[in-house]
Amino acid sequence: MEATMAKVHNYSAGPCILPQEVFEEASKAVLNFDNLGLSILEISHRSKNFVAVMEEARSLVKELLNVPDGYTVLFLQGGASTGFLMSAYNMMRENKKGGYLNTGAWAKKAMKEGNFMGKAVEVASSADKNYSYIPKGYSIPSDIDYLHYTSNNTIAGTQFKAVPETNVPLVCDMSSDIFSKEIDVSKFDIIYAGAQKNMGPAGTTLYIVKDEILGKSSVPVPTMLDLKTHADKDSMFNTPPVYPVYVSMLNLRWLKKNGGVAAIEKVNNAKAELLYAEIDRNPLFKGTTAVEDRSNMNVTFVLNDEGLTDKFNELLANANISGLKGHRSVGGFRASMYNALPLSSVQVLVDTMQELEKIS
Amino acid sequence: MEATMAKVHNYSAGPCILPQEVFEEASKAVLNFDNLGLSILEISHRSKNFVAVMEEARSLVKELLNVPDGYTVLFLQGGASTGFLMSAYNMMRENKKGGYLNTGAWAKKAMKEGNFMGKAVEVASSADKNYSYIPKGYSIPSDIDYLHYTSNNTIAGTQFKAVPETNVPLVCDMSSDIFSKEIDVSKFDIIYAGAQKNMGPAGTTLYIVKDEILGKSSVPVPTMLDLKTHADKDSMFNTPPVYPVYVSMLNLRWLKKNGGVAAIEKVNNAKAELLYAEIDRNPLFKGTTAVEDRSNMNVTFVLNDEGLTDKFNELLANANISGLKGHRSVGGFRASMYNALPLSSVQVLVDTMQELEKIS
Repeated sequence: MEATMAKVHNYSAGPCILPQEVFEEASKAVLNFDNLGLSILEISHRSKNFVAVMEEARSLVKELLNVPDGYTVLFLQGGASTGFLMSAYNMMRENKKGGYLNTGAWAKKAMKEGNFMGKAVEVASSADKNYSYIPKGYSIPSDIDYLHYTSNNTIAGTQFKAVPETNVPLVCDMSSDIFSKEIDVSKFDIIYAGAQKNMGPAGTTLYIVKDEILGKSSVPVPTMLDLKTHADKDSMFNTPPVYPVYVSMLNLRWLKKNGGVAAIEKVNNAKAELLYAEIDRNPLFKGTTAVEDRSNMNVTFVLNDEGLTDKFNELLANANISGLKGHRSVGGFRASMYNALPLSSVQVLVDTMQELEKIS
Repeated sequence: MEATMAKVHNYSAGPCILPQEVFEEASKAVLNFDNLGLSILEISHRSKNFVAVMEEARSLVKELLNVPDGYTVLFLQGGASTGFLMSAYNMMRENKKGGYLNTGAWAKKAMKEGNFMGKAVEVASSADKNYSYIPKGYSIPSDIDYLHYTSNNTIAGTQFKAVPETNVPLVCDMSSDIFSKEIDVSKFDIIYAGAQKNMGPAGTTLYIVKDEILGKSSVPVPTMLDLKTHADKDSMFNTPPVYPVYVSMLNLRWLKKNGGVAAIEKVNNAKAELLYAEIDRNPLFKGTTAVEDRSNMNVTFVLNDEGLTDKFNELLANANISGLKGHRSVGGFRASMYNALPLSSVQVLVDTMQELEKIS
């Protein structure tokens, strides 16, 4: 059935496209995993076969992101929404104060949780222009225990092009651009990321934690929210989300086989250049963010004439392009171009934009 | 390959066996879900196709457990280990005191979390005999905000045969026996259960919550730990664990098609009677728990002569019986017999026990 079905160009903002070969192996393991005659869904998480999956997943993260010694990789649950809370709980020190760069809806939610057990200070914000740019030229207070930021803003379509310069411990929610480009992990104390963009399916959350921060919180931390709990048990304190971890491992294997993060970064740059060039060239469209802060993952744009919306949507549907509707808070269109979206799918979108121009 | 492979009798304590037809449909959806030409792993959780899955899963829980009006069903993340914390956060009232029946490792962990934001009072305990029985004849203090218990103890192999009589709000961790027998939901304020026994694969946690308790905590509750957050958003506050919810839905469909909870309860009783009868009859074996508190889900037993262990393990392996090793804190053997384990697999185990008797 798959063979005769027209290819869907999946621009979903997340959960999102993953490689077809990952789906194929993931599908087989639901029937027979590791030739055990058992489904991956029915084996013990303490079995040597699943422990090997967890260890390979953790090890691939280290290898692909060049994680230095002194960091622990964990696959937990709860999404970035729980990460907002966990990162604050684990990073509060004597000042009980976290600094936040408010670059959008997710950053604001992180601040709310920082205010639960401490105080969240807004160090800089781009709320004045509906988060359409990344703040610059702000000064960082010296009395904060950590600085938190969101590396890529899926809703607004902005992305930090450099890691903020600071002397305080750095925490980053990398949910929507981790594994899309090279990063210097040594600059961070906690990196966390929901899986469902470039890492795997929904249902697991990655933490990369500097070991020296573990167990140093100035506030009491509940067992499951304490990263030390999970680090001490090699990410197996309680039953992990077996299948999401397994599929993430398959996807990280795919990334490694295809040249790793450096190689995919080039493809991601090419995809972004292709689409932004068309947005800037085509008189029917305009981008919604500051040019220098444009996200390579989520490209937001609008039609100059909203009256063309139905026509454009019709062309998109004809071209089998799915998931392009913009977030309700921004409107217009959002093309999410995660690792597994091929350059050819972006060309189909560009062709469709040009078709609209021709017939308008 | 599956066809020629000998059948494995899967006694894993969880994650555990699920029905083969569930695996088959779950495997297909990884390649092509709802005939969309997309994998269940790559579609938006806000798509109408996945919203329909979530709604069907919630509705099946209500139907199968006869959940009365005034309750909300949620599929969240974090396992029962997070449920220990969430249930306490949501049930603390003016006394800031929870009562706990300490019947094993999981109950003890729940008490620890109750002590985080309030005080956890041990109302009764069976720790004196390594949790081999269910406490009886205890009195329940009137100044506790709720009474918490674990309906089935996977490690010790004990199970409450009746709901504790009490006038205080009742909270139950039903991780390992929910959907195995009929229950009266109206007696409970919060029921929670990790999926990976009778509901589905690891990675989602069920909550059945009485609406009137929502938002009434006497202590501040972080966003993600507040059941009201999730109830207000129909269990879609943040990205849910899409695949674990989907497979749980398939499994609940299977249960409904096979007569529902009343029908499976009869099968579970038959399985338990068959195995316990053999343990009591066969002079080589003995059970490790009080007879009246024996669990129908996890049957714990030992060899009277430990010298026969290797021989018995060899026979088990020859019979393709997997997952029978007892938990290290109890030793011996543990046969976990969840809904999808057929009576025929129990007969194979009984035959193996009789074979050991014959050759010893």
